[in-house]
Amino acid sequence: MPATGVAEVLIECAEHVDDPAQLTDEQLAEVFRAYRERMQVLASDPRLAHVSVFKNVGAEAGASLAHTHSQIIATPIVPELTRAELAGAEAYFARESRCVFCDIVEKELADGSRVVARSANFVVVTAFAPRFAYELWVLPVAHQPRYEALTDSEALELALLLKPVLRALDAVQDAPAYNWFLHTTPLRAGAPGYYHWHLEVLPRTARPAGLEWGFGCHITTVAPEQAACQLRAALPDVA
Amino acid sequence: MPATGVAEVLIECAEHVDDPAQLTDEQLAEVFRAYRERMQVLASDPRLAHVSVFKNVGAEAGASLAHTHSQIIATPIVPELTRAELAGAEAYFARESRCVFCDIVEKELADGSRVVARSANFVVVTAFAPRFAYELWVLPVAHQPRYEALTDSEALELALLLKPVLRALDAVQDAPAYNWFLHTTPLRAGAPGYYHWHLEVLPRTARPAGLEWGFGCHITTVAPEQAACQLRAALPDVA
Repeated sequence: MPATGVAEVLIECAEHVDDPAQLTDEQLAEVFRAYRERMQVLASDPRLAHVSVFKNVGAEAGASLAHTHSQIIATPIVPELTRAELAGAEAYFARESRCVFCDIVEKELADGSRVVARSANFVVVTAFAPRFAYELWVLPVAHQPRYEALTDSEALELALLLKPVLRALDAVQDAPAYNWFLHTTPLRAGAPGYYHWHLEVLPRTARPAGLEWGFGCHITTVAPEQAACQLRAALPDVA
Repeated sequence: MPATGVAEVLIECAEHVDDPAQLTDEQLAEVFRAYRERMQVLASDPRLAHVSVFKNVGAEAGASLAHTHSQIIATPIVPELTRAELAGAEAYFARESRCVFCDIVEKELADGSRVVARSANFVVVTAFAPRFAYELWVLPVAHQPRYEALTDSEALELALLLKPVLRALDAVQDAPAYNWFLHTTPLRAGAPGYYHWHLEVLPRTARPAGLEWGFGCHITTVAPEQAACQLRAALPDVA
């Protein structure tokens, strides 16, 4: 495999801000637009197969710089977890003739117990099977395989939806370190019916140990329904 | 799935010791014997499918108690990472008619660059594709699918082999937090030709961030050959 790739750092504002929830709505919308634009540019390099977009907030989540920033890593391979998620979604589609993420959105909205916030086009839920307590997933309500399809106004909608949720997380869990990462269809994989982009927010609310690293079993001590309830209750104070 | 399982804590010595490398050889041998004995006892419960044995050393590796201890978690399912490793080993065997771990041992011993230490029956190598720098694997040289087959004298041999390596790791990396975990054939899976027990030692030499958690891509900054060279050089001082 050629050692080809691109590593970019997106500095999210000119002034020193170390918490993305303190960006203005328009600044955060610009972050989401910048993700899209860098993906579109990187797609033009035929050597690249995938763009991993992520964000580390706080030293415990691996951030080595406090100033709020994101990372954009383009690689000639599709990373292992992305391949596993795509394969799982494809197998579900083969069985059910449905996008698993469309089904998640539909069932979560019908049930409501894990819904933290929603807007016209997006929903934020606590993950059904979280790796860490308060893990959040942000999904488009309608089927959309590619993040690059995000419109400018949807980027602002996403910022307006997510910022109060991040502030609620800070309030409920005393500003935990976290990562977020964007899962979207790889560059050369078209627009499959079985896959649906989403943003996962993974707070570092526990320290993974031998059971997690050695066996893939994650222990959490807060049920996702309880986490969602706490986050919803904190929303009015922070909105 | 029934909520059935067993969680045991193995307290490794009566006096307060917080570093397993400070146990006596015989105490550490007893730890390895105790793993075997608890597995044998837990195997008699037909509801249990797998025993996860692991150890957390240091707060950064998730240890909540300083006194040196191990954890033994028996579950009615085979954990995800164990299933993935078994499936990979089985696929390799189907293709090559060889146990992949036997091949790893043979190639590592022939190459030598990642070998840290060896005894009559065991070898310690730095992992070829580490998740964290200085990740170590301890393997029996001869094919052995089940940890329960360990003899009392092999337990002492393992202690005598591993203790200086742990001290070398402490010397080279300033006593890092780490986990170790035992990968062995699940309780009801016989003694397959394709699988070979081993102990993985995972030092927390970096903080995993978005690329690791979101995409499964691990960044390390020390090549395993360089790590092995440093550990070998530290061995004479600590033996």
